[in-house]
Amino acid sequence: MVGQTIALRLSQFGHTVVVGTRDPQASLARTAPDAMGRPGFGDWSAEHDAIGVATFADAAQGADLVVNALSGDAAVSGVGAAGVADGTVVLDISNPLDFSRGMPPSLFVSNTDSLGEQIQRTFPTLRVVKTLNTMNAFVMADPKLVAGGAFTTFVSGDDADAKQVVIELLESIGHSDVIDLGDISTARGTKSLMPVWLRLYGSLGTPMFTFKVVR
Amino acid sequence: MVGQTIALRLSQFGHTVVVGTRDPQASLARTAPDAMGRPGFGDWSAEHDAIGVATFADAAQGADLVVNALSGDAAVSGVGAAGVADGTVVLDISNPLDFSRGMPPSLFVSNTDSLGEQIQRTFPTLRVVKTLNTMNAFVMADPKLVAGGAFTTFVSGDDADAKQVVIELLESIGHSDVIDLGDISTARGTKSLMPVWLRLYGSLGTPMFTFKVVR
Repeated sequence: MVGQTIALRLSQFGHTVVVGTRDPQASLARTAPDAMGRPGFGDWSAEHDAIGVATFADAAQGADLVVNALSGDAAVSGVGAAGVADGTVVLDISNPLDFSRGMPPSLFVSNTDSLGEQIQRTFPTLRVVKTLNTMNAFVMADPKLVAGGAFTTFVSGDDADAKQVVIELLESIGHSDVIDLGDISTARGTKSLMPVWLRLYGSLGTPMFTFKVVR
Repeated sequence: MVGQTIALRLSQFGHTVVVGTRDPQASLARTAPDAMGRPGFGDWSAEHDAIGVATFADAAQGADLVVNALSGDAAVSGVGAAGVADGTVVLDISNPLDFSRGMPPSLFVSNTDSLGEQIQRTFPTLRVVKTLNTMNAFVMADPKLVAGGAFTTFVSGDDADAKQVVIELLESIGHSDVIDLGDISTARGTKSLMPVWLRLYGSLGTPMFTFKVVR
């Protein structure tokens, strides 16, 4: 859902977007609506034919920027399967959610490590920038949906130029208050917003909220 | 520092406040300013003589409400030493910061447990309400100091009446947007704001900020 939502938004802003999946044929064969009533991937793809669908590797091939919107447990292997070229900026949204211990999910990486760091360590030639993982997919894609966009978006990454690329992309789609937290280890901070996000989701009864750093 | 700041604020609002310490004599003997230039406890106490100083147990004796502002590693033993009476509302601010692995500190309880839950489990007859641990002590005590108080304060606790007592106390000192996250296990959420708070402190260079849930 995150990948589709971001893909559509970036496509609407004029970017050439290709969605990578493990098995494009199988993905496109999915036409039944999901549990939330959203159209199956095949129907969604037919409706948005400007957005390509390819294998992870074909999608990443020649890309200026790779968005990692995989589920947390597939993130490292998925980035590996994509064979992303050295130096590519990887905008990493994935959260290490562990659904095995009941709801709300806990985290399978936390406190003294983070998934963003794991990806950066595993693929040291990539330029990983962690961002957007502190809000719902619809809010990521269209910040105006919550309080007209008056909230904070965080970036973490080791490469200043890569962060600048990501910040400009975020600003272009409406993120008006982007804070650069520092190197990729600061992803431990934003990842840890997830536990409070999940409780707020339960308490507020809607995912249409996010955090503003008031200062 | 948290305890003194909260004590002073509540005292200024007309509450009878007694600060509990392990060894009041030793605490009052501290007059040298600390590393931040704040007056030693003895001088502070002399300056604010409406605020009592006693042992943990004497301070808790007969209290309508007990504030736990101990450091995380002393929180459970400290509440135990206070011998707090059954049914008392414990407003718990403590954070489980672990300074042993470098700065910023990590957490010694995280993800699938929280310090608030540990205190509630250890003292099941108390009514623990976790709150305020997502902001600097000065902001806790006087919300107007950040953006005129336009930010969110969270409460977590098993007892609805106890949460109501705490919410009213918070509102009386200027917390205008208090969200009840749910039972004490939701303290896992607010405790996990600490890692991002610590990185923001590094990134913004000031502790005078906090979070607003924008919705």
